[in-house]
Amino acid sequence: MILRDSAALRSRVTEWKKTGASIGLVPTMGALHEGHLSLVRAAQAECARVIVSIFVNPTQFNNAHDLANYPRSEAADVALLAGVDGIFIPTVEAMYPEGYSTSVQVSGLTDRLEGAHRPGHFSGMATVVTKLFGMSGADRAYFGEKDWQQLQIIRRFTQDLNLPVSITSCPTLREADGLALSSRNRRLPEAARLRAPRLHAIMQETAWAIRAGRPIAAALTAGEADLEAVGFGPIDYLACCDAQTLMPAREMTPGQTLRLLAAAALDSVRLIDNIVI
Amino acid sequence: MILRDSAALRSRVTEWKKTGASIGLVPTMGALHEGHLSLVRAAQAECARVIVSIFVNPTQFNNAHDLANYPRSEAADVALLAGVDGIFIPTVEAMYPEGYSTSVQVSGLTDRLEGAHRPGHFSGMATVVTKLFGMSGADRAYFGEKDWQQLQIIRRFTQDLNLPVSITSCPTLREADGLALSSRNRRLPEAARLRAPRLHAIMQETAWAIRAGRPIAAALTAGEADLEAVGFGPIDYLACCDAQTLMPAREMTPGQTLRLLAAAALDSVRLIDNIVI
Repeated sequence: MILRDSAALRSRVTEWKKTGASIGLVPTMGALHEGHLSLVRAAQAECARVIVSIFVNPTQFNNAHDLANYPRSEAADVALLAGVDGIFIPTVEAMYPEGYSTSVQVSGLTDRLEGAHRPGHFSGMATVVTKLFGMSGADRAYFGEKDWQQLQIIRRFTQDLNLPVSITSCPTLREADGLALSSRNRRLPEAARLRAPRLHAIMQETAWAIRAGRPIAAALTAGEADLEAVGFGPIDYLACCDAQTLMPAREMTPGQTLRLLAAAALDSVRLIDNIVI
Repeated sequence: MILRDSAALRSRVTEWKKTGASIGLVPTMGALHEGHLSLVRAAQAECARVIVSIFVNPTQFNNAHDLANYPRSEAADVALLAGVDGIFIPTVEAMYPEGYSTSVQVSGLTDRLEGAHRPGHFSGMATVVTKLFGMSGADRAYFGEKDWQQLQIIRRFTQDLNLPVSITSCPTLREADGLALSSRNRRLPEAARLRAPRLHAIMQETAWAIRAGRPIAAALTAGEADLEAVGFGPIDYLACCDAQTLMPAREMTPGQTLRLLAAAALDSVRLIDNIVI
């Protein structure tokens, strides 16, 4: 069932909650792929009722061209979601009516990496996710590890604001050649699509080098050079960070979990990825 | 029963919710007076379970001296709340543990009046109220009209963020001489206490003049002069505004509800008040 505004969503959820049903939410921007569907399956395994939201949130796009070109495929998305209990597809006006004035801000975590390259992106994301949590009355919400920094920020503000939602993350799904599944992959021309898996491959080589004891700064410099050599550019970042705080790591420290994160354009399509070190 | 952290509060609320009980929340900064107790009675009339929170929230004080001198009277407050189901008295560390990074921001409404004179005040307030809503699982929350601008901001972000809480406001209670009840009144020296009701009296005269057709700007100028003449100063503002948007009103417009709001110090104690026009 498709729900187009928060009143329709809330009345449906209220009915479900009366029966004691747990509610799972999978927030998406549509253009669904297997990665999204793995989140839906995780939600279905844990929750009595599952809602998938599809909303290309304009306030998290810092670039009007990117917003205009973000892939949209509502009919195909709805067909892929045949088994879920509710599909929430609000309009921009329903989410941000006249007079709308509020935002959720997270300091520190949002300044680095994606935040440094996409001003306002994370505040827009945090705000719309807070709204979706409130509208859906979700007990649990599911997010992909592909957007690792986003995931850490969601965990942070959910805890900080005491939102009564449990956050579950699911691993990044990949094509057979290693390319992380992403809605933006649809925008890659064929030649670029063939080169795109090199992002993951070079990240793996970089992670291996760091684990083998190569100094982190040297490994990152080599990785960036490799990315440029195979045609990526600009490279917004290739960074080795604490997995939770995303503070840059200068060396391997026992007990600390590190994450390697990258963002780089290929043929003007900006790709991101991250892996454990 | 006194609850000192969010885990204790949430487990108690979860038990109540299982029985289908509605939850009412009355957020306070303690130093309770009859105004607070009128909110508690309103909550008790509408909700099966009532929680009163007592938390002098440091992030909404822009002035360290004001925070240090804010009246605190926990034992007396608890005695006044004998009939409520839960009294939530968290520590600052329980509300803002290490690593805390999130804030709720409301644009526009927060810039004027109190916002112009107390930088950061309303963001601190909006953030802690959002946290209290999340922790308490409240269905309804109760606020006094004495803090009129705060009330409009709370209505704004509750709607904007789709927080599942219904906001109820209760009228300002006053002493027999017209002084609005306020925790800060305790800090008035005796001579100042005798003069303090003139704030409300001069505001009433100003409102009468505006209703009688005197140009708003002239009425406000006269009111400010009257306040200064009886010893108020500095006068942060005496303003005639749209009751909801708090945009300054230059004239009476049919269908628009106006509110007269003032903030002025007397013997270094800052008093605020507001009345309908």
